[in-house]
Amino acid sequence: MRSVSHHQLEAFVRRCLVALKMPERHATIVAALMTDADLNGSDGHGVFRLPQYVKRIRSGGLNLQPHIHLAEDKGAMALVDGDNGMGHLVMRFATEIAMERAAEHGVSWVGVRHSNHAGPAALYARMPLKRDMIGIYVAVGNANHLPPWGGTEMLLSTNPIAVAIPSNEEPPIVLDMATTVAAYGKVKTAAQRGEQIPEGWMIDEFGNPLTDPARANEGFLLPIGGPKGYGLSLVFGLLAGTLNGAAFGKDVVDFNADSISFTNTGHFIVALAVEAFSDIAVFKRNVDAAIRSMKGSPTLPGFDAVRVPGERSFQVRCQRERSGIPIPDALFDSLAELAESLDTEMLSES
Amino acid sequence: MRSVSHHQLEAFVRRCLVALKMPERHATIVAALMTDADLNGSDGHGVFRLPQYVKRIRSGGLNLQPHIHLAEDKGAMALVDGDNGMGHLVMRFATEIAMERAAEHGVSWVGVRHSNHAGPAALYARMPLKRDMIGIYVAVGNANHLPPWGGTEMLLSTNPIAVAIPSNEEPPIVLDMATTVAAYGKVKTAAQRGEQIPEGWMIDEFGNPLTDPARANEGFLLPIGGPKGYGLSLVFGLLAGTLNGAAFGKDVVDFNADSISFTNTGHFIVALAVEAFSDIAVFKRNVDAAIRSMKGSPTLPGFDAVRVPGERSFQVRCQRERSGIPIPDALFDSLAELAESLDTEMLSES
Repeated sequence: MRSVSHHQLEAFVRRCLVALKMPERHATIVAALMTDADLNGSDGHGVFRLPQYVKRIRSGGLNLQPHIHLAEDKGAMALVDGDNGMGHLVMRFATEIAMERAAEHGVSWVGVRHSNHAGPAALYARMPLKRDMIGIYVAVGNANHLPPWGGTEMLLSTNPIAVAIPSNEEPPIVLDMATTVAAYGKVKTAAQRGEQIPEGWMIDEFGNPLTDPARANEGFLLPIGGPKGYGLSLVFGLLAGTLNGAAFGKDVVDFNADSISFTNTGHFIVALAVEAFSDIAVFKRNVDAAIRSMKGSPTLPGFDAVRVPGERSFQVRCQRERSGIPIPDALFDSLAELAESLDTEMLSES
Repeated sequence: MRSVSHHQLEAFVRRCLVALKMPERHATIVAALMTDADLNGSDGHGVFRLPQYVKRIRSGGLNLQPHIHLAEDKGAMALVDGDNGMGHLVMRFATEIAMERAAEHGVSWVGVRHSNHAGPAALYARMPLKRDMIGIYVAVGNANHLPPWGGTEMLLSTNPIAVAIPSNEEPPIVLDMATTVAAYGKVKTAAQRGEQIPEGWMIDEFGNPLTDPARANEGFLLPIGGPKGYGLSLVFGLLAGTLNGAAFGKDVVDFNADSISFTNTGHFIVALAVEAFSDIAVFKRNVDAAIRSMKGSPTLPGFDAVRVPGERSFQVRCQRERSGIPIPDALFDSLAELAESLDTEMLSES
């Protein structure tokens, strides 16, 4: 494991993207967001994805000069067309629109189509926090890993939701969750480490528990709460995909296996201006009180404390800003290879 | 088990409410919505609740002359104050506002405070369907049945979400789910029948599985996906409760145990006008295609078919419109007692 400063990491990602002929202002935005993902502890959605993004850019599967624009506009509601640009650029554009419109209308719902993988869901739900707004983000995942409940055909993705709620003295509440018991990344990590996965994460095509992650491609992820998680994945897919004219179900392109086909990724972001509902200071104090009340609960045997969503990523961020971002050796090597192939300076350890 | 026609049931509920001095136009609305709940198969949230509502009305815990009004209004966003009226009246008012505003702005988010239990979540999510809109409804539940994840203090309710999406030839998608593995009503039903409940529904205060529903008051409901369901219950509670100035957490009044205290129930309803995003006919055909694709999946052993949320309640409704609504003997007896105490004509069997 190496450790690199976030400044170094951000500059490295930016160099790589510029070397690939991404416009400098775009590379700056994407590098900052990818580094943010690593700072917040979303290890599977930050620089870990860079080699995959590079592969897609080199294959011509991403538009480096996207005309990101509003396809529909009703004021509080808008529909963004990402023109097959990097998902980070498209979602940042959409979230800026959502915040602007929520300031005027109290709420804004911005749908997105023709986008791509945009990193961790929490990145976009968090953005409205700085304007004392609540953010809600949903995406159609970029590969199908589960069938509808009771079925065997992989028609659904983990379709995540993130919700961020501003607080006063406590860290903000930031929920970022897949609609499956485990994200597929966790299964892949267990496979790399040669570990078994717990019962309840996956089943095979006969409905039996699958605990050997090396056999992951013979089975499916299980949705949270069985039919309930299936229902959430389905409605989130329809709202973030179908409603926006983006891919859902059979049309989802597995971006792990295919670096060329247009993914037509769909998302939506909702911003809610707290001031439209309440005095901002009163609301934030009430959120603090709710957080403290949860954390004040006595614990079950085996638990040292009650946690609130966003608490751990807040601690990770504080630590990583000080001590750097850990990069596993295998990832470090693949980034070194990338730097060499792009004829750009490699990341230096901090 | 008796069977009554929905016309009979609706007239009966209306008679009871009028006998309690609810204004006639309000009684008409509430009776129609409660009957709708039973028609759709929400057996625990329709006429089953009438004796409880009556108890609260008689105790003075509900305002029979509520001044339901907008406390905040930003166009696409509004905040309804229910003035402690029946939840059905308050939520119908809020949903009408949401639909009106979504027609203009593409989206509308209406928060609600000072409301009461309003029946099944799906009732309000479904309302926008008739205007080719999508409905999303969330409520703070009226009793806390679970602690935060890892804790033992009951600070959270099952805080349900319902999402309804219009379709063309297929029944619409209507998801209506608690954020817990099982709703508390299912535990109570098992207790009445002397049946055990499956592992995974509840744990006791030591974290051990609780399978005897007679001991339900010694344990807690389990959230779907463990910490994920806890996270959903928490953020739904903050969005439907705290943001609106409604009760959440420690402030939630257990309306089963207390018929007098002001519940200050919070909800929110979101309406999305499909036409703002897409051609309505195209969208509805795409939803049909998604439904058919899910249902077309081969099945796992033990499953006869893949179902889509809302499918079963659609079938139940068709059947009950024809053959009547089944009323268990115990409920029938308690309704007969109610009719007698109100000096009004009892429900007749169909």
